[in-house]
Amino acid sequence: MPARQGSILIENLQPQIDCGRYPVKRAAGETVRVTADVLKEGHDELAVVLRWRQLTPKAAEAREATMRPSGNDAWEGEFPLFENGLYAFEVEAWPDAFRTWAQELSRKIEARRDLSSELLEGAQLLRAAAERAAAAGPAGAFDAERLREGEKALLAGQSQATLSRALDPRLAETASRYPDKSLATRSGRELRVFAERKRAIFSSWYELFPRSTAREPGRHGTFSDAERMLPYVRELGFDVVYLPPIHPIGKTARKGKNNALTAAPDDVGSPWAIGSPEGGHKAVHPQLGTLADFRRFVKSAAELGIEVALDVAFQCSPDHPYVKERPDWFQRRPDGTIKTAENPPKRYEDIVNFDWMGPERESLWAELRSVFLHWIEQGVRIFRVDNPHTKPLPFWEWVIGEVKARHPDAIFLAEAFTRPKMMKALAKAGFDQSYTYFTWRNFKHEMEDYLKELTQGPAAEFMLGNLWPNTPDILPEHLQQGGRPAFLLRSALAATLSPSWGIYSGFELCENRALPGKEEYLDSEKYQLVQRDSDKPGNIRAWIAALNRIRNDHPALQQYRNLRFHKADNDRVIFFSKMTEDRSSQILAAVSLDPFAAHEAILELPLFEMGLQPDETYQVHELLSDERALWQGPTAQVRLTQEKPAAIWSVLRFRRTEQGFDYYF
Amino acid sequence: MPARQGSILIENLQPQIDCGRYPVKRAAGETVRVTADVLKEGHDELAVVLRWRQLTPKAAEAREATMRPSGNDAWEGEFPLFENGLYAFEVEAWPDAFRTWAQELSRKIEARRDLSSELLEGAQLLRAAAERAAAAGPAGAFDAERLREGEKALLAGQSQATLSRALDPRLAETASRYPDKSLATRSGRELRVFAERKRAIFSSWYELFPRSTAREPGRHGTFSDAERMLPYVRELGFDVVYLPPIHPIGKTARKGKNNALTAAPDDVGSPWAIGSPEGGHKAVHPQLGTLADFRRFVKSAAELGIEVALDVAFQCSPDHPYVKERPDWFQRRPDGTIKTAENPPKRYEDIVNFDWMGPERESLWAELRSVFLHWIEQGVRIFRVDNPHTKPLPFWEWVIGEVKARHPDAIFLAEAFTRPKMMKALAKAGFDQSYTYFTWRNFKHEMEDYLKELTQGPAAEFMLGNLWPNTPDILPEHLQQGGRPAFLLRSALAATLSPSWGIYSGFELCENRALPGKEEYLDSEKYQLVQRDSDKPGNIRAWIAALNRIRNDHPALQQYRNLRFHKADNDRVIFFSKMTEDRSSQILAAVSLDPFAAHEAILELPLFEMGLQPDETYQVHELLSDERALWQGPTAQVRLTQEKPAAIWSVLRFRRTEQGFDYYF
Repeated sequence: MPARQGSILIENLQPQIDCGRYPVKRAAGETVRVTADVLKEGHDELAVVLRWRQLTPKAAEAREATMRPSGNDAWEGEFPLFENGLYAFEVEAWPDAFRTWAQELSRKIEARRDLSSELLEGAQLLRAAAERAAAAGPAGAFDAERLREGEKALLAGQSQATLSRALDPRLAETASRYPDKSLATRSGRELRVFAERKRAIFSSWYELFPRSTAREPGRHGTFSDAERMLPYVRELGFDVVYLPPIHPIGKTARKGKNNALTAAPDDVGSPWAIGSPEGGHKAVHPQLGTLADFRRFVKSAAELGIEVALDVAFQCSPDHPYVKERPDWFQRRPDGTIKTAENPPKRYEDIVNFDWMGPERESLWAELRSVFLHWIEQGVRIFRVDNPHTKPLPFWEWVIGEVKARHPDAIFLAEAFTRPKMMKALAKAGFDQSYTYFTWRNFKHEMEDYLKELTQGPAAEFMLGNLWPNTPDILPEHLQQGGRPAFLLRSALAATLSPSWGIYSGFELCENRALPGKEEYLDSEKYQLVQRDSDKPGNIRAWIAALNRIRNDHPALQQYRNLRFHKADNDRVIFFSKMTEDRSSQILAAVSLDPFAAHEAILELPLFEMGLQPDETYQVHELLSDERALWQGPTAQVRLTQEKPAAIWSVLRFRRTEQGFDYYF
Repeated sequence: MPARQGSILIENLQPQIDCGRYPVKRAAGETVRVTADVLKEGHDELAVVLRWRQLTPKAAEAREATMRPSGNDAWEGEFPLFENGLYAFEVEAWPDAFRTWAQELSRKIEARRDLSSELLEGAQLLRAAAERAAAAGPAGAFDAERLREGEKALLAGQSQATLSRALDPRLAETASRYPDKSLATRSGRELRVFAERKRAIFSSWYELFPRSTAREPGRHGTFSDAERMLPYVRELGFDVVYLPPIHPIGKTARKGKNNALTAAPDDVGSPWAIGSPEGGHKAVHPQLGTLADFRRFVKSAAELGIEVALDVAFQCSPDHPYVKERPDWFQRRPDGTIKTAENPPKRYEDIVNFDWMGPERESLWAELRSVFLHWIEQGVRIFRVDNPHTKPLPFWEWVIGEVKARHPDAIFLAEAFTRPKMMKALAKAGFDQSYTYFTWRNFKHEMEDYLKELTQGPAAEFMLGNLWPNTPDILPEHLQQGGRPAFLLRSALAATLSPSWGIYSGFELCENRALPGKEEYLDSEKYQLVQRDSDKPGNIRAWIAALNRIRNDHPALQQYRNLRFHKADNDRVIFFSKMTEDRSSQILAAVSLDPFAAHEAILELPLFEMGLQPDETYQVHELLSDERALWQGPTAQVRLTQEKPAAIWSVLRFRRTEQGFDYYF
């Protein structure tokens, strides 16, 4: 027989992921709307409360918020996410005995019954509530007195006065504050919500290799050189500068230019082949400078409002100090050789793998945790994690949990260019942002389907897609073929479809020389220094800067789940809106998907969602051209060209009427 | 740090309800298809197994079935439900080290590498597998030998012969049988499936009051009289005869005819006012006969293939022996009076309520369990439970679990005419069948929506709707207004839309005299004896019998979740199909929803689902008229009249061609 308990059933508690296995994610400052179905046999009045508490960075006492019935046995309530960190919530419900009694009494009065027995019952309920109020200490003393008075009134016998007193809502209100919770039910396992800081949701990334920032051709750049790039990054409007690994690079099996199996003596190697006698994951490549130089770089960036994101690639060059110091952390063959990384027939001879789940796992994981904490000490809070899908999910869940418990402002971007369920599993395990397949979605139907899945589907509760038109590893066919117009339209899409986007440097210069037949850069910066002319003719710096400025000016573009697609009568034109919940910021965007031709389209405007009357006239401000127009009615026409393949309108209203005129009345 | 474990993630395990809180329901004899997403970092070959075991009526050892990958990290497998009872299942997965090795080896061979180190590794894996095989006792000895031979072969050095041996699938197969499970992951909490016996899904109910079965007007019927009704029930084609409560009826506050507050001396009272000095829930009303008479009734029914369903109404007349013997089982007011049942302003003065969650709850619940067990001893296995939504859900979950652990063949029908979520919660708590809102769904759109929700929605995993056009409590407006054609069409709908349906006696005689302005019977049998002329002109006995015969002949009508609606171009005509999975039984049905006029409609046939080519000719057999026709193409026309408002076609095929002719070849 089940233990004595309440008979209330609380089910379908939302939001939750996988039965509460993982926290959902929200933005700090937001309110979490919680819903649940609450059922009990019979006709009792129920009291339902939401209990919530902050878990990290500091544990707080649980607080309660009353939930409201919303029909069909559903209840809803809210709690605020004051600040960045982890929260927990649950729902508790109990029968409200005095309210139930009062409810029934009022219906019995209509039926003109003798109610003396009922009044005794009500008095008994009030006496019990008074006792609980008195037990609540000084705070309850006043209420206890009122409840005792109520009890006495009910014992005075059936009369109009008695019944009025019995049904006084203030009396029920007071009694409800001291409930009998012996039949209360809780929803069970607490559910969790992680409140992200703003930049985890709204971020604009610029990836650069510090070693390529020297002014003089052929010289290895330093952090000091890279510092001089920061105003350039700022001018482009980015607020995160992301650096590939900055650690010493191994010499054993170092790769040459264009991933050649053997390196020339002056080849710089791949920064992802981490570790040399000069140090490992906590060290700085001597040619870049010192740890102090790096800290100065971080500080200079901060002064410009830019955060530094570091690449974390948990793999080692054969020359990494770990290999000698902790041979037990690596996978070995029976002949004693360390296994190099491979995905046959591909082989990464310059990289060896950790034995993630091996016998020395505890010390290994602890050491890797210390890598994050080390860089946090240097002022870094954003980590772009390399190939997380080749490392165990339990490791990520553990290490991100450990770091965030101390530093909830740490942000983890998963380079999860992998199978869809693994991409989502990594997000559930704790990554704040994820790379996506946006990079390969070029046509209208596939783009709409995919972005709907990302922003409206179940995964939107825990995964935020950071959209990248290119990376050092990926030069998509679209950019290779489409040239400058493709760079314009792909950046317009990335910058507006998601609040987080990024480019790898050179994108703004429309660099698109590829290895033949591949989606990889020719003369890739992964293996050599690259010299760039940032004033190269045809560059799209102004366009990128405009996109980032528009994003900064319009809160609607700083949210993720508010993306809605609308109809455009041309399959080469995609049309969508983003609005804040209060509609104070409304953006419409039309982007051509065709880099090879100009296109026109009739757009079907979401007037209802915009809160506009069918015949209302409103103003639109096209932000890329700074042109204004008055629109009316359910459609608008747009022409997009190869030079300007996107239109981004801010919608403004005429809210004033003659009645607002000072002298009207 | 999490305990050492495998890094495989098993998620989205299906079927499950509410995170495994409740068992899903299936039919005994069926196969359960289980799916799960199984993810691991990297590129390992995985072994995934479904582990399942029977829990009741007898606990059995767990068995394993291999699961197959079905793409996108999803896996699927099956297990059989041999017999009626409760089963549990879980999924276990581990990396298959030797297969992974062999997979990589084959790709490395293509890349023409030196593989000596790899071969040592493979040999080591085989040695470990051989040790596990040897440890498995005599059964593994032969395999151990083969694995050791494999090991030796691999140690012979790189050669074509060695590599062929290494990649021999039989070697991998043998090694896989002795896996290293140290990195295995289980899905966690076992999920449960309850296998229903066939009648819990496919049942045709006839409700009759035994006291109304006397031949002589005015005499109180007995079980012997009721026995004479059984051939009539059989002739109508029903296989469950359901009796309202058969217990002694209280005299205190007994209701008179038409629910009058005071009864005349010869009024028989409501059978739901259970209990008198002559006994309570385990006793038989003396005017109906003895317990032995009841047992004979059950036996006579069984001889005709009919099961007896008893009404279980857990409430007491004030005269019930429990009230004196166990006053602590009842809710009392402070003045000592027992609370009568009420839903103000309605009051059921002839009924008192148990104190379900009170201090004496354990003894009360145990006693009520013994009521079920008592009637099971008398040969009853089907219980129709009165107003279950006014009793606690935890009670139902407990008592049904207790009864079914001993008697999985017990069937519980919930008279859950209540809010939708409570109806579903009762089904989750263990009720096999539920009354539904079918009784109030009369028009095409609402009928399609509701039946789709019932048979295709999430609730179909645990709730089976038993469709009743009428009950002693409910004479729907549709039947009152629509007369005989309404009775014809409502029974055709109920009998075909669900494998379980029922009528309350008098339906086949088209009885429809109502209390003015209400959906209740005038001179309701709940409060008085009723005399019927089963040969009443206009009766629809032949129609009902035909419906039940058709149901018995066609397995497609004996399943629940196979209902599919199709287009008919007339809003008064509903058109649907039911098929068995192997398509050996295919039913199409068109039913008029209008009792007032004849209707024609063009039906859009689901040729693809029926497995028919667009140009194929096939035979349909209209089962109510026994007429046959040849159809071809995607549409057919039907005419439905007030006399015959339904058409039910069995679809037959011409499968023979000239090539089947004996001498063709």
